Amino acid sequence: MALTHFDAEGDAHMVDVSDKAVTSRVAKAESYIKMAADTFDIISEGRAKKGDVLGVARLAGIMAAKRTADLIPLCHPLPITKVSVELTPDASLPGVRIVATVKTTGQTGVEMEALTAASVTALTVYDMAKAVDKAMEIGGTRVVLKEGGKSGRYEAT
Amino acid sequence: MALTHFDAEGDAHMVDVSDKAVTSRVAKAESYIKMAADTFDIISEGRAKKGDVLGVARLAGIMAAKRTADLIPLCHPLPITKVSVELTPDASLPGVRIVATVKTTGQTGVEMEALTAASVTALTVYDMAKAVDKAMEIGGTRVVLKEGGKSGRYEAT
Amino acid sequence: MALTHFDAEGDAHMVDVSDKAVTSRVAKAESYIKMAADTFDIISEGRAKKGDVLGVARLAGIMAAKRTADLIPLCHPLPITKVSVELTPDASLPGVRIVATVKTTGQTGVEMEALTAASVTALTVYDMAKAVDKAMEIGGTRVVLKEGGKSGRYEAT
Amino acid sequence: MALTHFDAEGDAHMVDVSDKAVTSRVAKAESYIKMAADTFDIISEGRAKKGDVLGVARLAGIMAAKRTADLIPLCHPLPITKVSVELTPDASLPGVRIVATVKTTGQTGVEMEALTAASVTALTVYDMAKAVDKAMEIGGTRVVLKEGGKSGRYEAT
Amino acid sequence: MALTHFDAEGDAHMVDVSDKAVTSRVAKAESYIKMAADTFDIISEGRAKKGDVLGVARLAGIMAAKRTADLIPLCHPLPITKVSVELTPDASLPGVRIVATVKTTGQTGVEMEALTAASVTALTVYDMAKAVDKAMEIGGTRVVLKEGGKSGRYEAT
Amino acid sequence: MALTHFDAEGDAHMVDVSDKAVTSRVAKAESYIKMAADTFDIISEGRAKKGDVLGVARLAGIMAAKRTADLIPLCHPLPITKVSVELTPDASLPGVRIVATVKTTGQTGVEMEALTAASVTALTVYDMAKAVDKAMEIGGTRVVLKEGGKSGRYEAT
Repeated sequence: MALTHFDAEGDAHMVDVSDKAVTSRVAKAESYIKMAADTFDIISEGRAKKGDVLGVARLAGIMAAKRTADLIPLCHPLPITKVSVELTPDASLPGVRIVATVKTTGQTGVEMEALTAASVTALTVYDMAKAVDKAMEIGGTRVVLKEGGKSGRYEAT
Repeated sequence: MALTHFDAEGDAHMVDVSDKAVTSRVAKAESYIKMAADTFDIISEGRAKKGDVLGVARLAGIMAAKRTADLIPLCHPLPITKVSVELTPDASLPGVRIVATVKTTGQTGVEMEALTAASVTALTVYDMAKAVDKAMEIGGTRVVLKEGGKSGRYEAT
Repeated sequence: MALTHFDAEGDAHMVDVSDKAVTSRVAKAESYIKMAADTFDIISEGRAKKGDVLGVARLAGIMAAKRTADLIPLCHPLPITKVSVELTPDASLPGVRIVATVKTTGQTGVEMEALTAASVTALTVYDMAKAVDKAMEIGGTRVVLKEGGKSGRYEAT
Repeated sequence: MALTHFDAEGDAHMVDVSDKAVTSRVAKAESYIKMAADTFDIISEGRAKKGDVLGVARLAGIMAAKRTADLIPLCHPLPITKVSVELTPDASLPGVRIVATVKTTGQTGVEMEALTAASVTALTVYDMAKAVDKAMEIGGTRVVLKEGGKSGRYEAT
Repeated sequence: MALTHFDAEGDAHMVDVSDKAVTSRVAKAESYIKMAADTFDIISEGRAKKGDVLGVARLAGIMAAKRTADLIPLCHPLPITKVSVELTPDASLPGVRIVATVKTTGQTGVEMEALTAASVTALTVYDMAKAVDKAMEIGGTRVVLKEGGKSGRYEAT
Repeated sequence: MALTHFDAEGDAHMVDVSDKAVTSRVAKAESYIKMAADTFDIISEGRAKKGDVLGVARLAGIMAAKRTADLIPLCHPLPITKVSVELTPDASLPGVRIVATVKTTGQTGVEMEALTAASVTALTVYDMAKAVDKAMEIGGTRVVLKEGGKSGRYEAT
């Protein structure tokens, strides 16, 4: 089986989507960042008291979705029509769970935009808490839903 | 304990590093992307035959390190002096292990640059293989080494 | 009354415009920069003799319109179809009056693009003349016309 | 008197600062956005209840400071060492007063970075409240303090 | 004859394409980089042995196509639907011949995107080989094909 | 002979310049764009009458110098301290000759910045005149001077 991002000679290219239909598309990706219990306490109390880590990270994720085609070499630029990023503190990790949702009306899907938004959200949480906890770890970054376009609906199991 | 990225009122700011010494700094971050065995086979054979997924992803990671201050809201812009990204196919995952190393001669550390490079490398592998495998998962994204600057050497255990 | 850029929990998001019609839209914004009389003389003579401050500022404004979605966190990326920026020296300020006009065929308006173009035009005039006059002031930045889309025509009074 | 951004032929250029000393520099700029009383009420209550307009705008301003050399054609790229943006609701406007402070250790000043931060902060407030109030106006954008470098201290009167 | 990028007063503007039809468009541009025979040998053997210069340059060209509207002041942003860049070692130069092909479904052509892709591809070859050969020269950069849109088909002779 | 942009395994990396001295460096690059005689006439008269093609192109080149590290994958980001771009109409081509000069005080040279400035200047001339002349050709893009740093002075013959 061949990868579509390479041509017959094995050279990378941006796949031709000129003839694909312009359809409504949505993708959802998730990620999490695990941290020490103390770090978790600082972050989850933060909004009201010491600084809104989750608010800053959410905004970074939303803005990153718009930079996806600049970051991922063979990604098509797309007119994004919606981005949202939910951050949920989860004491059982302990850490923060992230879900990013992106929509477009375009010729290719927005999985990469959703994954990029989730990843940069997690990286921004790391940045803001790294002075107190360098051992945080980001994981579970994956697509959970993709809808619209010829390849149909994909939902993670 | 307070987070340094917020001032006394809890407002986000870019921390003042004007008085920190300009020192030589290095950071190393790792990540991995897990995939189906078939996907692994396509990618690990790729360089010689069907397209150099790892080469494209490496370059994306290197370029992303230079965009870190654009992506992470409170990150300082830094004159990066070296970036390397190693990708190692690991049949036991199965998947690809990623290690990014970044150096600077500056007033703050480059953990975020190393983490961003590792993350975007992994995202680019996802992008190139997503047509054959949507269930790939990125994880284990963390700092493994940080050296230089006042806070001293950090090595992940 | 709630602000549309926040969801029910008060979290920022990029508003979903997926279901809005693609229509022809235009927005016009204005701004001015006030300066000392001597500075005004240098700038308004400039084109012919000492350097085209207004030409440089115009170009900066046009290019900034294209960067709007990168700068304004919750702004949608839009396929801009026209940008013009008029700069008119006004001895009665003394200073320069700026009007930026932006068009798109898209799902949201281009007020932010017009305001960004006008603002960056004014900032560029400041940059070029700051060696002779640090006390210049930018003001009167506002939307004067917005047309197209469901909310109808808006004209400043 | 000639403008330094143009050479003897009147052609624009980025001024040669190679021989200027690397010194500690700071600049402070202010701006305000005026709005209807109802809009003011929504925004100033926002943080606790309906959405943190000021927090989003502050972050946009901080990030914009880092993009200054991309936006202002003849601006030198500088290693920014600190950015802070204060937003203060002022019922007497009614509206929001903005003060941006930027530091660097470099060869030129950071007035443009401070002005850009203040301007984009104000533009972002406009973006978030424009659905309820299109007639908001941004003004009073000026440098209030500049220190460091050969030209000495400047303070607005 | 007047240039369309200037208005009646001779001021630069981004041409209004709001009323142009959205059609399928393609452009092809070429360039070459000439080098010493020794440099040619290193580069053309590179893929298999010492490093894939052509692969890195190809990717740089593809990514540059997406940055065209950021680089060329009066260029319209366009939803690119395909980019490919072919690099062919040509011992008779000696050097590398480059052909970039770009497609869009939009309101203006993509010549600038194709020319930018070809130019940045050549510049990247220069960057990678400059340690061994500073005298390389880039030339022959031109549009060879343009199709779609009102002005019809153009083919270089 | 090996290329420095690849490691022992042949993988691309951003070369480690951490231990190189911070020195004053300058580079000069040239390019030209050839056009039909009629196009030449329009452009060379332009400044005074119909629109300042050369002024717009000069500014694009200056701004592009600042984007070099974003465009050329393995280029180090550098604090540019000067950029100038000269455009000289040359009736004997007929066309425009371009010389870009870039300075830095840093750890690597600025040849790529000078070449990028010259190339984007030429591309912008193409953009502005393409409505009247699609057959223009850009060539002669090369480094003519490089000074500073360990490798010493290079001057094109």
